[in-house]
Amino acid sequence: MQDVLKRPDIPACLRICAGTDGSVTQLLEVLTGKTVRVETIYQKVVKATPETARVLGIDQGEEVNDRLVTLKVDDIVYVLAKSLAPINRIPQAVRTDLMRADIPIGRILREHKLETRRDILKMEILHRDFFGELPVLSREYRIIYNNEILMWINECFPVDERWKM
Amino acid sequence: MQDVLKRPDIPACLRICAGTDGSVTQLLEVLTGKTVRVETIYQKVVKATPETARVLGIDQGEEVNDRLVTLKVDDIVYVLAKSLAPINRIPQAVRTDLMRADIPIGRILREHKLETRRDILKMEILHRDFFGELPVLSREYRIIYNNEILMWINECFPVDERWKM
Repeated sequence: MQDVLKRPDIPACLRICAGTDGSVTQLLEVLTGKTVRVETIYQKVVKATPETARVLGIDQGEEVNDRLVTLKVDDIVYVLAKSLAPINRIPQAVRTDLMRADIPIGRILREHKLETRRDILKMEILHRDFFGELPVLSREYRIIYNNEILMWINECFPVDERWKM
Repeated sequence: MQDVLKRPDIPACLRICAGTDGSVTQLLEVLTGKTVRVETIYQKVVKATPETARVLGIDQGEEVNDRLVTLKVDDIVYVLAKSLAPINRIPQAVRTDLMRADIPIGRILREHKLETRRDILKMEILHRDFFGELPVLSREYRIIYNNEILMWINECFPVDERWKM
């Protein structure tokens, strides 16, 4: 287990959401008893930079779906999530849903019955402008499909009292 | 979400473990900060009964790995888990690990890098001799691999104070 997940100063509910290899949206809904709302900050198709190409294992210049969303319950932001997905690897039927951007990724994978696995790459405490002075638990992981990276995801969870549910 | 998961009389930590579409073992380890131990009650290869054949979508008489284990932390049982897996559908490399029976299934899938999905079938409150008079939250789900049922699992979680962590 990642060391961050053992820190007693991190609320248990946050540790759970950051520690799962399943859907975070689903856990948030169980924890709060309410529906999670996805709010899109941006969603665009971009050409892969050298860094993006490296992270996704694709060629520079290939098309990538780049989306930044928040997961909210009752107008409280629990997660800021960035995802990068190479367009050519997204099954055609999934593409429309993914580019609509207001559907949680876990739900998209489930509805399209994709068989995948998740590889946690990194977990650390840092700061993000979006959350101002608050420390943030950040994790990076990949969703693997057909032995290729379907998606690279970075989720940031603000570390504060909002997780005392 | 299943109605059972909204019941305020069910401890939050139990609702989380029962509600995840990821690994229960991993969540239990995050919740307790300790390693989960798998204890085997039995593990055997059996011929599929008509009922087992129906549940797994195989022919009657086919070989099935039948295992019953508990997940324990500090000698406290959190989960009683029964799994049925058609031998012919288990990739060769995975078979040995699965039949050793003391490795959690989530860890086996991860280590062998299997791409899968989980379908929750049912969730209900009932009784099980193993837990005596205690009510038990029981869930059934299937792990799908290559569009076939790799495993049918029934997890039973005793509903009591042990989940107040």
